[in-house]
Amino acid sequence: MNSFAILSAQFSEKFNVRHFPASPATLYDPNEYFLSLGGKRVRPVLCLMGNELFDEINPDAWHVANAIELFHNFSLIHDDIMDKAPLRRGHPTVHEKYGSATALLAGDVMLVAAYEYLTRIEATHQRRILQLFNKTAKEVCEGQQLDMDFENQAAVSLEAYLNMIELKTSVLLASSLQMGSILGGAGERNQRLLYEFGRNLGIAFQVQDDYLDAFGNPDKFGKQVGEISYQIRKHFLLIKALEAAKGNDKKELEALLQSNPEDKVEKVLSIFRNCGVDEWARDLKASYMDKAFQQLEDIAVVSIRKEPLKQLAEFLVQREY
Amino acid sequence: MNSFAILSAQFSEKFNVRHFPASPATLYDPNEYFLSLGGKRVRPVLCLMGNELFDEINPDAWHVANAIELFHNFSLIHDDIMDKAPLRRGHPTVHEKYGSATALLAGDVMLVAAYEYLTRIEATHQRRILQLFNKTAKEVCEGQQLDMDFENQAAVSLEAYLNMIELKTSVLLASSLQMGSILGGAGERNQRLLYEFGRNLGIAFQVQDDYLDAFGNPDKFGKQVGEISYQIRKHFLLIKALEAAKGNDKKELEALLQSNPEDKVEKVLSIFRNCGVDEWARDLKASYMDKAFQQLEDIAVVSIRKEPLKQLAEFLVQREY
Repeated sequence: MNSFAILSAQFSEKFNVRHFPASPATLYDPNEYFLSLGGKRVRPVLCLMGNELFDEINPDAWHVANAIELFHNFSLIHDDIMDKAPLRRGHPTVHEKYGSATALLAGDVMLVAAYEYLTRIEATHQRRILQLFNKTAKEVCEGQQLDMDFENQAAVSLEAYLNMIELKTSVLLASSLQMGSILGGAGERNQRLLYEFGRNLGIAFQVQDDYLDAFGNPDKFGKQVGEISYQIRKHFLLIKALEAAKGNDKKELEALLQSNPEDKVEKVLSIFRNCGVDEWARDLKASYMDKAFQQLEDIAVVSIRKEPLKQLAEFLVQREY
Repeated sequence: MNSFAILSAQFSEKFNVRHFPASPATLYDPNEYFLSLGGKRVRPVLCLMGNELFDEINPDAWHVANAIELFHNFSLIHDDIMDKAPLRRGHPTVHEKYGSATALLAGDVMLVAAYEYLTRIEATHQRRILQLFNKTAKEVCEGQQLDMDFENQAAVSLEAYLNMIELKTSVLLASSLQMGSILGGAGERNQRLLYEFGRNLGIAFQVQDDYLDAFGNPDKFGKQVGEISYQIRKHFLLIKALEAAKGNDKKELEALLQSNPEDKVEKVLSIFRNCGVDEWARDLKASYMDKAFQQLEDIAVVSIRKEPLKQLAEFLVQREY
């Protein structure tokens, strides 16, 4: 049983090798370039931790962890094309550096490479892992599509936004843990609890991110509310405030989103506070964290085995109670 | 043992159902739309024929055939984005109808759906099928990348063009046959011979296509040589003619490609004949067909079982000797 930091270092050492042939370089160099940009490798390490929660690391867990990280990078390369993002981790995105057509193909072949790692695992768990991987992969695509659909919608309901976030980000965290647990020999009930732990943790993390974005990072938030764009709607607190604000607050908020006064950010944040959106977000995050910790608690293994996951969760999402 | 026509009808009946969930419709309707445009379904039927060459159809062959056809459609959706193609089978391409971002995601999820079918097959042959499928998928991506690379190259050698064609189109035909043969219980040697049969047949078909394009369809060919573009170089006969033409013919051909006289097509075809490119193409096709038929001949099953494949090959590529 190891901490996130230790497993992360072990994973990086194994993962930081070439995953693609040398030729054709026009196809594979872009993949190696993108992987060289690094990343926190949270998802593959969750797979290893999900395994260690139940048993020593199954050698196949390294293959599955590789597959998960390659899948994540495939989705980033393609999302960057769709979002026309110029930078990723401070460096040019694949489509910026090599063109959209090559970025598209590089992503495709990255996905195939993920399946190559899954093809290597022992037959015992292979079908179950493939099923979960396929299901998750489709959900991640669905989440990205819903995210794009929001751009053409006048308003986004909180429920729809939560569903999108869950598909786009939480299910991969959840199923990374579950895949690890399958390889660790967990039973169905424990697998399900661990999946739910990951799913709720993912949502709590996203709520926190949006909260800190508004109240912890007003400059960045200022840029977002400064743009009469999708970004305004794509935010937990704004979605909630547009639903919760009443009377003058509601009118003022809507007017603020259409204009650009100097004190816009302060005014928006003040309306957030008036209609209790700050408190609501803290409560929402806490409720997802409570669920997550309860699910971890309910998993039938000795408490000591749960420590690394508990610590990671507390590191990712600060609890304020 | 059934003919291509019978297996094709059987496959279409099974394949013409929904392959995707109803929701989100913004993601899955584009997939169902594209599949509804039809196609000859050659590749999945080759899988079924490869199976029947050795034994009765294994129920898993239907899953693999579905996976192959979904993979082929995934590659078409993405190729159409890269090639900025407005039409496919006389109808708007996915990116034309739904936008590039959705077409990209629809392709991604089509590839995942292909793997869902592969996930369903029995463990006995699953790993071998997945390995071959992954290898082929990467090669098809490599072929598309090489094809795009040619656009930035002043000249394309015949060898490089053959390699590209092989990766982009022949390997999928070849491995469709081989996957079927695996499910039919074929040994390694027979599998390899069948793969080579498909690979050579695919190249012969492409040579014939380019030959007919020039000598059988001067209008279409006229459009191609009329454009000083990649299309000129992307053609067996032109590549060969640029290598083979000497003296005045060579000068005239190069000049013709830079200009647009009324009798351009006639003049280009006349140079082709002068330097024997027409005869060369017929010989090249014949040599690939000879190889293909020899490989089919060498497969260790009774001759009668080979009849459907022999008939299909002769239908696809007319032999002139």
